[in-house]
Amino acid sequence: MTRIAIIYHSGYGHTAVLAQAVAEGVGKAGAIADLVKLESAEQDFSGALAAVAKADGVIFGAPTYMGDISVPLRAFFVATSKAWMAGEWKDKLAAGFTNGLTFGGNKDHSLNSMIVLAMQHGMIWVGPAQPLGNMNGNSTAAPEAVNRIGSALGVTAQSDNAGADVTPPAGDRESARQLGERVARLAAKFTA
Amino acid sequence: MTRIAIIYHSGYGHTAVLAQAVAEGVGKAGAIADLVKLESAEQDFSGALAAVAKADGVIFGAPTYMGDISVPLRAFFVATSKAWMAGEWKDKLAAGFTNGLTFGGNKDHSLNSMIVLAMQHGMIWVGPAQPLGNMNGNSTAAPEAVNRIGSALGVTAQSDNAGADVTPPAGDRESARQLGERVARLAAKFTA
Amino acid sequence: MTRIAIIYHSGYGHTAVLAQAVAEGVGKAGAIADLVKLESAEQDFSGALAAVAKADGVIFGAPTYMGDISVPLRAFFVATSKAWMAGEWKDKLAAGFTNGLTFGGNKDHSLNSMIVLAMQHGMIWVGPAQPLGNMNGNSTAAPEAVNRIGSALGVTAQSDNAGADVTPPAGDRESARQLGERVARLAAKFTA
Amino acid sequence: MTRIAIIYHSGYGHTAVLAQAVAEGVGKAGAIADLVKLESAEQDFSGALAAVAKADGVIFGAPTYMGDISVPLRAFFVATSKAWMAGEWKDKLAAGFTNGLTFGGNKDHSLNSMIVLAMQHGMIWVGPAQPLGNMNGNSTAAPEAVNRIGSALGVTAQSDNAGADVTPPAGDRESARQLGERVARLAAKFTA
Repeated sequence: MTRIAIIYHSGYGHTAVLAQAVAEGVGKAGAIADLVKLESAEQDFSGALAAVAKADGVIFGAPTYMGDISVPLRAFFVATSKAWMAGEWKDKLAAGFTNGLTFGGNKDHSLNSMIVLAMQHGMIWVGPAQPLGNMNGNSTAAPEAVNRIGSALGVTAQSDNAGADVTPPAGDRESARQLGERVARLAAKFTA
Repeated sequence: MTRIAIIYHSGYGHTAVLAQAVAEGVGKAGAIADLVKLESAEQDFSGALAAVAKADGVIFGAPTYMGDISVPLRAFFVATSKAWMAGEWKDKLAAGFTNGLTFGGNKDHSLNSMIVLAMQHGMIWVGPAQPLGNMNGNSTAAPEAVNRIGSALGVTAQSDNAGADVTPPAGDRESARQLGERVARLAAKFTA
Repeated sequence: MTRIAIIYHSGYGHTAVLAQAVAEGVGKAGAIADLVKLESAEQDFSGALAAVAKADGVIFGAPTYMGDISVPLRAFFVATSKAWMAGEWKDKLAAGFTNGLTFGGNKDHSLNSMIVLAMQHGMIWVGPAQPLGNMNGNSTAAPEAVNRIGSALGVTAQSDNAGADVTPPAGDRESARQLGERVARLAAKFTA
Repeated sequence: MTRIAIIYHSGYGHTAVLAQAVAEGVGKAGAIADLVKLESAEQDFSGALAAVAKADGVIFGAPTYMGDISVPLRAFFVATSKAWMAGEWKDKLAAGFTNGLTFGGNKDHSLNSMIVLAMQHGMIWVGPAQPLGNMNGNSTAAPEAVNRIGSALGVTAQSDNAGADVTPPAGDRESARQLGERVARLAAKFTA
C-alpha cells in the first residue's frame, strides 16, 4: 500500500490544520498518511526519519517565519544528512506546504528551501498543479477558491491573525487536501 | 542632482502605470527620473544603457510572465555584459517591481532575477522596506493598503484581468511611488 | 515508446555539447530523444511546442548569461502560456541543465527559472540525483568527476574560455548523459 | 565610528575562519567589528540582537548544511521578529558569507535566505562586487584567487574535508576580508 509521510511543524495550529487536510487527501487516494509533527530543533528526529524511510512520498510543511521555514523543520533537514549520504530517499516523491500572515511573505522561499533539500536527496518534486483560483484576477481574495494565491511550487496558505478554527480559509484547506491526494496518486503510479 | 533610471517593460500597460508611480516618487524626493521603456528582445539597448550609466540608482520593472521577468528585460540584462566586464554599475543602487494576475505567481522569482543581475554588477539592493499592509491578516485583500501583498524583495503588484486604468489598485501604485522615493532619497544620501 | 524532448539554446556550442550528451543518455535508456535547438526570442516556437506535446518528459537547457537562462529559452517559456492554460504539460517529467564560465555564476538561479516554469505547468521535477563528485572536497576541480560541482537542482557545467571541442570537461558531459538516462528511465516507469 | 556586526555560526571552524577574515577587513577600513558567534537554536540571542542594534551594517555567516544556512542562524533570524515589527534594522547595510564542501551545494540558496531576511527588515543588501577569479575559466580551481567560485550574492567559500587550519584556501579568506572592508567602507559613507 502506498505510504505518504507528512513531516511538519506548526507554531499556532494553522499549519497543523493544513497537515490534517493533506492527510485527508492522502486517505482519499487510498493511501496511508503518516503524520509526524516536529516540536523543536533539539528533539530526537528518529521517528520522523523512520516515517520517511517507510514512505513512497514525503510532504513537508512549516509556517513561514521571517521569510523561511520554521526552525524545527530546518533542524530536521540538517538531521537527514546520514540518509542523504546513504542515498536512502532517492526517487521518493516530495512536495510541500506553508502558511503565513500575508499573501506574500516570501513563502516561495520556504518552498524553495524544501525543493533544495528534496533535490539534494535525489527526490522527485511534485507541485500542486492547481489552476489559478480566479483567472479574472484575485483582487477579491476569494477565500473559498482552491489556489486563490496563485502558487506553483507548493501549497501556500494565508491565515489571518486569528485562531486555527477560523483561518486559513476553506480554499487553502482544500488546496492542501488536493495536494495530498495528488502526491498519493502519483506515488501509487510511480511505485507500481 | 540625483538621477534614477527606471528601466522597464510593460505588455499591457499595468507595469507602465507602476513605472509612472515610481517616477513620481523619485520626483517627490527631488531627484530626476529617467523613464526608459523597453520594447523587445531585438531592440537597440544603447539608450537604456546610457540612462543607467548616468544614474545613481536603477529601478527595474517588468511583468511576471510564466513565473519570471518578461523577455525584453531579460534581453536587456544579457546586453549589460560589457558594462559588467568594465564594472561600470558598481555601487549604484538597484531596486525592482513587478506585476501579475495573482497575489503569488512566483513574482518573487522575478525579483530574484533582478537581484542576481544587480549583484553580478556589484550594485547595492534596496527593497521597499514597507510594513505589512495589514498586520491582522490580509485576507480581505485591502486594495488601498500599501504593501497589501506582504512583499519584501521589491514591490509586487496584482492586476485584475482589466485595463490599466482600473487595475492595479491604489495601494499597489502607492507602494511603487514610495519605492521610487526611497531609492532616490537613499541614492542622494549615498552619493553625497 | 518513451519520448523525451530536449529543448535548449546554445550560444557558442558548449550547451549544445551537453544537450547531445543528454540525448545519448536518453537513448541509452531505450527512449527516443527529440533534440530541439532554440535560436532566438523572435522565432516560431511551434516546433518546440509540438515536441513537448508528444513527450513524456522534457529536459530544458540553456547557458547562464548574466545569472539566468539565455533569452531564447526565456522567450520559449513565455510562449508556453497557451499550453499552460490548457494544462497540456501536466504530469510530464521535467529536468534541466546549464553551463557557465565559473563554478558559481548563479547557475542555480537558471535552474530555479526552469523549476518555476515546470511547476506552473504542473510538471514533475527530476534532479540529477548524483552523489558529490568528491566527498573529500572539490578543491582539485576534478574535471573527470560526475557532479564535480555539487549540483542538485539540475546539471551545471563549467566551461573554460575555449571551444566546445575541449570544454566543458568529461565529467560534466557524463553528468548530462546520466541526467538524460535518469529522466528517460523515470518517464518510462511513470507512464507505464 | 562605523560599527559592523558579524553574526555567524560555525560547525567545525571553517566558517569561523571566514568570520575572522571579514572582521579583519572591517578593521582595515577603520571600522569596529563586533564578532558574535551563535551556538545553538536554543540559546539566548539578546547579545546578538544588541550587537545588531548598535551596528551600521551586519554581515551574516553560516555553513551551508543540506543546502541552506545552519540551524543557529535560522533560529536567530526567527528571533529577530520583534526588531522587525519595530523597524529597528531599517536602512542598515547587510551582507553574507557561507562555506561548504563543494563549489555548488546550493550555497546561493543560503545567501538567498539571508537576503530575504535582510529585505524583510528593510535593510540594504551589499554583495562582494568581486570580479571573477579567473576570466579564462575556473577549471583549475585557483585556490589563491579572490572569488574563484564566481559568486555574486555574497562570499561563498569551499572547504575540503580537512581542518580549518588548511582549508578554505587563501583566495576564499581574502574574498571574505574584502567583503568586510567593502561593507565597512560603504556603511561609513552611508551613515556620514
